[in-house]
Amino acid sequence: MKNKIILVTVILWVFISLNIAAQNRGQDLARYVDPFWGAGEDWWTGGHTFAGVTVPFGMVKLGPDCNKKNNNSGYDRNGKVHGFSHVHVSGSGGNPKYGNILVMATAGDIKVTDYGSDRGNEASKPGLFSVDYTSYDIHAEFSVTHSVGMHRYRFNKGGKSNILFDLGSYLTWVDDEWTQEFVGSEIQFISDRELQGHSRIRKGWGKGDAYTVYFYAITDTPASETGTWKSGKINRGSQSEADTGEPTGGFLTFDTKKGQVVQMKVGISFLGAEKARANVLNEVDHWDFDKVSSKAYGLWNKELNKIKVQQENKEYREIFYSALYHALMQPTNRTGENPKWTSNKPFYDDFFCIWDTFRATHPLFTLIDADRQTDMVNTLLEIYQYEGYMPDARSGFSTGITQGGSNADVLIADAFVKGLKGIDYNLALEAMIKNAEVPPGGDEDKYGRAGIPEYTTLGYLAPYRKRAGSRTMEYVFNDYCISLVAKGLGEKQIAEKYLRRSNNWKSLWNPTIEDEGAKGFIIPRNIDGSWQSNWDLHHVGSLNDWLYEGNSWEYSLYVPHNVAELIHYCGGPDRFEQRLDTFFTKKTVSTNPYTSGYYNVSNEPSFLTTLLYNYIGKPWKSAAVTRKILHESFRTGIDGLPGNDDSGSMSAWYLFHSIGFYPVAGTDIYLISSPTNQRSEISISPEKNITIIAKKANSENRYIQSCRFNGKPYNRSWFRHSDISNGAVIEFEMGDKPSTWASDGELPPSISYKY
Amino acid sequence: MKNKIILVTVILWVFISLNIAAQNRGQDLARYVDPFWGAGEDWWTGGHTFAGVTVPFGMVKLGPDCNKKNNNSGYDRNGKVHGFSHVHVSGSGGNPKYGNILVMATAGDIKVTDYGSDRGNEASKPGLFSVDYTSYDIHAEFSVTHSVGMHRYRFNKGGKSNILFDLGSYLTWVDDEWTQEFVGSEIQFISDRELQGHSRIRKGWGKGDAYTVYFYAITDTPASETGTWKSGKINRGSQSEADTGEPTGGFLTFDTKKGQVVQMKVGISFLGAEKARANVLNEVDHWDFDKVSSKAYGLWNKELNKIKVQQENKEYREIFYSALYHALMQPTNRTGENPKWTSNKPFYDDFFCIWDTFRATHPLFTLIDADRQTDMVNTLLEIYQYEGYMPDARSGFSTGITQGGSNADVLIADAFVKGLKGIDYNLALEAMIKNAEVPPGGDEDKYGRAGIPEYTTLGYLAPYRKRAGSRTMEYVFNDYCISLVAKGLGEKQIAEKYLRRSNNWKSLWNPTIEDEGAKGFIIPRNIDGSWQSNWDLHHVGSLNDWLYEGNSWEYSLYVPHNVAELIHYCGGPDRFEQRLDTFFTKKTVSTNPYTSGYYNVSNEPSFLTTLLYNYIGKPWKSAAVTRKILHESFRTGIDGLPGNDDSGSMSAWYLFHSIGFYPVAGTDIYLISSPTNQRSEISISPEKNITIIAKKANSENRYIQSCRFNGKPYNRSWFRHSDISNGAVIEFEMGDKPSTWASDGELPPSISYKY
Repeated sequence: MKNKIILVTVILWVFISLNIAAQNRGQDLARYVDPFWGAGEDWWTGGHTFAGVTVPFGMVKLGPDCNKKNNNSGYDRNGKVHGFSHVHVSGSGGNPKYGNILVMATAGDIKVTDYGSDRGNEASKPGLFSVDYTSYDIHAEFSVTHSVGMHRYRFNKGGKSNILFDLGSYLTWVDDEWTQEFVGSEIQFISDRELQGHSRIRKGWGKGDAYTVYFYAITDTPASETGTWKSGKINRGSQSEADTGEPTGGFLTFDTKKGQVVQMKVGISFLGAEKARANVLNEVDHWDFDKVSSKAYGLWNKELNKIKVQQENKEYREIFYSALYHALMQPTNRTGENPKWTSNKPFYDDFFCIWDTFRATHPLFTLIDADRQTDMVNTLLEIYQYEGYMPDARSGFSTGITQGGSNADVLIADAFVKGLKGIDYNLALEAMIKNAEVPPGGDEDKYGRAGIPEYTTLGYLAPYRKRAGSRTMEYVFNDYCISLVAKGLGEKQIAEKYLRRSNNWKSLWNPTIEDEGAKGFIIPRNIDGSWQSNWDLHHVGSLNDWLYEGNSWEYSLYVPHNVAELIHYCGGPDRFEQRLDTFFTKKTVSTNPYTSGYYNVSNEPSFLTTLLYNYIGKPWKSAAVTRKILHESFRTGIDGLPGNDDSGSMSAWYLFHSIGFYPVAGTDIYLISSPTNQRSEISISPEKNITIIAKKANSENRYIQSCRFNGKPYNRSWFRHSDISNGAVIEFEMGDKPSTWASDGELPPSISYKY
Repeated sequence: MKNKIILVTVILWVFISLNIAAQNRGQDLARYVDPFWGAGEDWWTGGHTFAGVTVPFGMVKLGPDCNKKNNNSGYDRNGKVHGFSHVHVSGSGGNPKYGNILVMATAGDIKVTDYGSDRGNEASKPGLFSVDYTSYDIHAEFSVTHSVGMHRYRFNKGGKSNILFDLGSYLTWVDDEWTQEFVGSEIQFISDRELQGHSRIRKGWGKGDAYTVYFYAITDTPASETGTWKSGKINRGSQSEADTGEPTGGFLTFDTKKGQVVQMKVGISFLGAEKARANVLNEVDHWDFDKVSSKAYGLWNKELNKIKVQQENKEYREIFYSALYHALMQPTNRTGENPKWTSNKPFYDDFFCIWDTFRATHPLFTLIDADRQTDMVNTLLEIYQYEGYMPDARSGFSTGITQGGSNADVLIADAFVKGLKGIDYNLALEAMIKNAEVPPGGDEDKYGRAGIPEYTTLGYLAPYRKRAGSRTMEYVFNDYCISLVAKGLGEKQIAEKYLRRSNNWKSLWNPTIEDEGAKGFIIPRNIDGSWQSNWDLHHVGSLNDWLYEGNSWEYSLYVPHNVAELIHYCGGPDRFEQRLDTFFTKKTVSTNPYTSGYYNVSNEPSFLTTLLYNYIGKPWKSAAVTRKILHESFRTGIDGLPGNDDSGSMSAWYLFHSIGFYPVAGTDIYLISSPTNQRSEISISPEKNITIIAKKANSENRYIQSCRFNGKPYNRSWFRHSDISNGAVIEFEMGDKPSTWASDGELPPSISYKY
């Protein structure tokens, strides 16, 4: 009897313990993730998300590089696989970056060019990627820790089986001034199981300086033969190739039995090969591939559990967690790997680019991982201290080009108004003012703001300057961000100055221009104050045009800090409503983000626009427009995204709207959207949650009928960060008919202070 | 008899062969070199030349680092020696650069801090440095190839003898914003004779980016024990230390017999450790230290033979060849070692700085090694192509700060007017115009020209800007250089524009200012056109002042392209002569180059001034002044230089004047000075010499009495490059009394064309 009691007690205890453990672990949300989601390779429509294996914000992103001219993330559903390389970005456009330390398994004779393989049975889940190299009858699996790629190859045929390291390989696409260029590489065998070396590449999108990726690799099986190559010439038995500016490589050949498995760990570092080796020793002190894989899976689950959702629609749920997964890949955590200076503080790289990510991605981090967002902001300030300017784009430890304004300013303001601790805001204000006042010089594309003297005297940039229109509109909002921080720090004069400058959008506003019933647009203005005639309001520009990735219709609506004044300029609420109606209905979705149109879902300048109806008391129209885009433009699968994910920017946009609100980045305002999840629970700390309940929400029931905020009726289509920063419960009642909810409540604030 | 004839014939043949060989080798001029010449360590008065071993323009400069706070070149006659490091510069000022991969030999227990030794019997000649580490009873010898340092240690005591590699060591002096900072290091033993690794450092003078020096070392003797350390903590038996941002090191311990010799080769690379190893394999495939040493000696002799002089005064001869030796160390040839991009073209680093070297050093290279000067100019253009601007200062493959104007322009013009082949002058003109037109931005100290918009509108820089005065004066001459090249390329409009701008020195010229009988000076002018009052004309400024390393007296004489107009502004030839008399007699030599004075021998802005009497037909006064400086300010020995050699700038100044002429850099004019050598033979190509004969020249006979140029009487105190570029013989008759020679000949040209 006593034994029985003990047994029952033990069983109960075990059961309770397991249950607690399971709760601590959270739900298995990683199973909803499709790593291939949005990985489409099409230049115009592909999402270019990273489909390989990585851990959250992981330094090693081990993924397949396919075809000769590779996709930005390396992946391409078509053609051959040329191997798995260890460094990638997710969702970027333009000319690719990275694709370093490519490893390929082959069978038979060594080939050091054209060694690519046909492939089959590609499968991936967080922490595991598997594929058959069908040309060689090899089954390949890949997993990863933060700094180490783990490889497991099953050589089905047996006989001579090889692992190649191609240090001359890197991602390219079109050949232009941005294309990555090879600088050098080096390889060194240490034993019949170990090798190390580096690959040095420059440029790629952003035209960054040369960066060096070091590696150290160790197999669990001794090679029967090793060798190297340089510029395609094989040197059998050679132990090393020095860096003479030529592509080098090395191979290990194994005499394998049929079906023999060979495993390998490849550590990566930006400091040195020995550091890469230390990364291997620190992170994977065993040969249990499955342990690595399940640990990575667990890390993802831990992150994904920061937003637990109830979503009846399985496809929506899959998109949600696939989007969250891809939003948590970048900026890359490269703490302790900075080759430019020493610092014991957290350090992030691959801000790619803040122009994309300030709008939704970073506000998402602020909500679910404020400490990480703090670290990212502090990284920007550290870069300012060491290099003179905060970056807008940065990868390979090198600041790249600035697409528009100095949008790091928005991250600062966003952190400040949301009360992130541990940031030196006086230093941050100094860094913002540097952007606003000190001309970046040279080609003016790298730092701060181009044409600042002109902007400060005229109030706008004249159209001879690239991206003069979009830059002006962004400078205006950047100025508002400075004003916000200065005000908060008690710097009244500075705050006044930049608040004045935040009116500068009016200097490009021509009230006489009409199109489709809308009157008043921003159009190019010459240096003498005259206006450019016959401007095509529908023309979507690129890097060399007046507007960057947008048209006049879009940028004429980009005054996030003062929509009230914008409405006034547009002729009042009714005219503004008509204008938005036209904007969204004339050509709602463009499959080619670079062609003309009114509204482009896939470009960031319009990210906020779908909720502008909130500012005229018609949130149901915001809901209608936003839901239409969510349902029409986002799908499951590889083509699930309507364009580049831009480091999780599109993903974050989707996530916020699925939950039911969206940030006016740089301010403390969130606009209420149209929740699609029946329930979303955002963990802002171990003790605090924001719970959004959307009763009856489904694809039909898109309109908010009523709202309770922490139990009290709520009749405003917006709230402040302070309303949710200690946790909150927001309950919506959804319906399929537009309602008058929030139509007579206080409108979302525009500039809330004056001097 | 027959045998006897054969024997005689053979002996004769051997004798003739040896003689021819000796002639081909040239004279043994290296024996006149004192490597310690000008190596004085005093901050104000020291020459800071490199006293260690290197080959001409060699990448490895292996020399002693002494004391805790090291001299710029590492050397200090006082205190302990802490080891020999492999990368140095020669003659620099400001905060030191380099001092990487420090190696120290010790005896007894391993100490990884405070391992420095007392020293004795220091001796050096080109290619060989020897010293006793008396604290450890070790005799140490060092030699060098281009990329490899060779070490030979005799451990007199026997027992435990050690070689330490301190990768955390680098040169520092004062602690300020310029001080070199440690970034990281890594070490890896490959065997009991081999190790490799790197040391990564940032900043130093010029505030350059982080640079990485890789090394590979191999001893001729296996170590009985090896180990590593990190941040001072010894790890016995450890094979490696990864780069975790901390200083690391490694040691080899040898169980030695009394007097046992251990040799070591240390290869250096900026690309990788394997490249460093390849450098060892390529350059030293043996263990014959003396062979390395005599080869280095031979390389020096080959270079030194480019100027063969007869100089009866042994001290003058020693200074001459010691100066030539130190002038041929920099810029450093780093061909095939560029970590920023690949190029198969020659590549030079350590332009340190062009502000110093454009005046005499580069014109010297143009005469004795035109191909090398072409390579250096092409390096500047390659940097322009890859980074956007030509540098003014560059080291560690990173552009540093600009001291004044964009003086790379002067190198371009100098090359152009002297007809250097193999330079794309259209590209060069583009690079010059970029300097002149595109603001560098940021702190404006790194690229191009600070304050260009102001300069182009006002004609000068207003004094709120650092170095506004000296910058203006240099921009003016830079503009003239652009004009020269544009004119030559048939770009009339461009030439006109910059010729106009080359008058801008007048915009700072205040004709009412008087001092010591001189009237008209450049003084600070405010942005509204008004003049600053009470300006101290004797104040020698530094980086943060209105004038850089000079005073108003000096810079008011810096109009190299239009001395005729300057004379006019000074009130005509008589007033100009009085002004010069005052300038040179009031305080001829200042031992402290940074204190006030009229004329400073040790600062570059006055380099040309001693010959300005030539422009008023009184070359004998130029001779008097120049000779006085030569004899009073230059001596043999460690204190032989009156200040920083500045990468051979002071040396080159001395060399030209000893030969008897001096270049107006950027133009094709040479001004005749006062030859001290009885004969100088400059080899401008294997077939062509310029021979300068100065009959009776000695320390008394300093005045030219007559001159024959290629045999014909010559009555001008100047000539053009084209007069000597195919070889020439210039014969002077010297005497101890001033003469009227050249007083009524054509004066040296000022601007020779108008539009």
